[in-house]
Amino acid sequence: MSSENRNEGALRPLSHDVALLLLDSFGKQGVLSSWGARLTDMAPGSCEISVPMGPAVTQQHGYFHGGVIGAVADSAGGYAANTLLMPANECLTAEYKINIVAPGIGDTLVARGKVVKAGKNLVVSCAEVFAVTQGEEKLCAIMQQTLFVIPKA
Amino acid sequence: MSSENRNEGALRPLSHDVALLLLDSFGKQGVLSSWGARLTDMAPGSCEISVPMGPAVTQQHGYFHGGVIGAVADSAGGYAANTLLMPANECLTAEYKINIVAPGIGDTLVARGKVVKAGKNLVVSCAEVFAVTQGEEKLCAIMQQTLFVIPKA
Amino acid sequence: MSSENRNEGALRPLSHDVALLLLDSFGKQGVLSSWGARLTDMAPGSCEISVPMGPAVTQQHGYFHGGVIGAVADSAGGYAANTLLMPANECLTAEYKINIVAPGIGDTLVARGKVVKAGKNLVVSCAEVFAVTQGEEKLCAIMQQTLFVIPKA
Amino acid sequence: MSSENRNEGALRPLSHDVALLLLDSFGKQGVLSSWGARLTDMAPGSCEISVPMGPAVTQQHGYFHGGVIGAVADSAGGYAANTLLMPANECLTAEYKINIVAPGIGDTLVARGKVVKAGKNLVVSCAEVFAVTQGEEKLCAIMQQTLFVIPKA
Repeated sequence: MSSENRNEGALRPLSHDVALLLLDSFGKQGVLSSWGARLTDMAPGSCEISVPMGPAVTQQHGYFHGGVIGAVADSAGGYAANTLLMPANECLTAEYKINIVAPGIGDTLVARGKVVKAGKNLVVSCAEVFAVTQGEEKLCAIMQQTLFVIPKA
Repeated sequence: MSSENRNEGALRPLSHDVALLLLDSFGKQGVLSSWGARLTDMAPGSCEISVPMGPAVTQQHGYFHGGVIGAVADSAGGYAANTLLMPANECLTAEYKINIVAPGIGDTLVARGKVVKAGKNLVVSCAEVFAVTQGEEKLCAIMQQTLFVIPKA
Repeated sequence: MSSENRNEGALRPLSHDVALLLLDSFGKQGVLSSWGARLTDMAPGSCEISVPMGPAVTQQHGYFHGGVIGAVADSAGGYAANTLLMPANECLTAEYKINIVAPGIGDTLVARGKVVKAGKNLVVSCAEVFAVTQGEEKLCAIMQQTLFVIPKA
Repeated sequence: MSSENRNEGALRPLSHDVALLLLDSFGKQGVLSSWGARLTDMAPGSCEISVPMGPAVTQQHGYFHGGVIGAVADSAGGYAANTLLMPANECLTAEYKINIVAPGIGDTLVARGKVVKAGKNLVVSCAEVFAVTQGEEKLCAIMQQTLFVIPKA
């Protein structure tokens, strides 16, 4: 994907006010909190979320569950959009599609979301999800997503 | 969707052995257990999963999180496939795509998965997810999914 | 899928004015015309499009091309939405996802689109595509789609 | 997307034999031929297809039809996989999902497919589609796709 489209705002810093709004919204997401998920990087048009391995995120073989991988990818794409929409607006997920390309085996799951196209009403984001073992990243999923823009509550 | 394709096996009962294998696999999924998810119906080619509202399944407004909706739909489609694949085989999620059509507002989330096409190597399932308030169901998401068949571990 | 959600308007007839607008729009689609595609059924919330086999719709084995199957499914879902949106509005495809579940072998391709949820700004449709051989239908694809509502040009 | 995963083979040249097999397969696709589509670039793990504007590729406003955009993206992703699979194997499209992010306005449509993950049985590809006006490219769609590997016919 061309970096021009994916990360137009990467050279601009994220404003302090927007960063606080993002952290506030993120902290209210019970499901992410219950997994120990953290916002580990933010810039205009992109967002990184990290989740440690633990008993509440596993499937039957003890790996990261595909549903967790999907949920974290969905959130990373949505918060990437929010970096461009807040403080005036925010977004709801209209739909997402995820391909699991390798098992989620690792000590940490890292999802990196990026905005592909920010329209007035719709934002299209994508995300890559990596399973990380002692710092070594392995691609385990890719996601494509449509978000609908609404006024910030 | 035509019922002929969606639920070919519905007239056959699910064997006791397969039901036990499904419940055993389901019980090992840490993420579903942590949400209090239960297998509330099973038949050849279909599966229903129910999740009660609670602090570990919410997004920022206190509704069922889109990632939870996706994870439960993914699981319902996968276990619908497993009803036809077990005991010899089981399946891995290759990919899924979900449209959220209404907020997940309710006391219970119910996902109903059905097999659309069971091939030798690939199974295509779909699912509908309902947000339920005091017994009244409202459609909140639809999912389409591709599963890859592997020998049962 | 529950018929209540999929085809709410099926009991109402489609107005003559809307039918003419749909046919006018359909007739302007060069790609569908070049394939000999026809609108073979319309009702509020649903639409059927049929395409005869011919040299301009094949892949390398002489079957209906996956891209043709996708294009016809996309159109069937979009026109299903238009039955509810016209005359005031119409829709653009934001995204679609299609699973090919069997080869497109037959003399005719028939796509049946239905509206799953008609919101103010977004419509979610789905479609089933059948490969037909001497009147016998075989499911060859299922599609899920998001459409964006715009004022009718 | 990380270039390591997307284009592992880009440093190796495509063998002459594989290039001939790709061109032979491509030439047999009636729908692509009818649009004047050409394979304009190939390398191990990637593929570019270009389509000129013409009466057989339009929607109702005279732009490239969404179904054409999808078909060309599907083909670009599939032939990107074939560069790695041929001569022993080839692939069938199991499913694809495409987001249209801008109208297909231009004199040429260019789709660039890349392999994200090449497994033994499944290949995951993605593609970007650009609408080109007098050499200036504008992103109009992104696609994600699952392909199933079969022995070369």
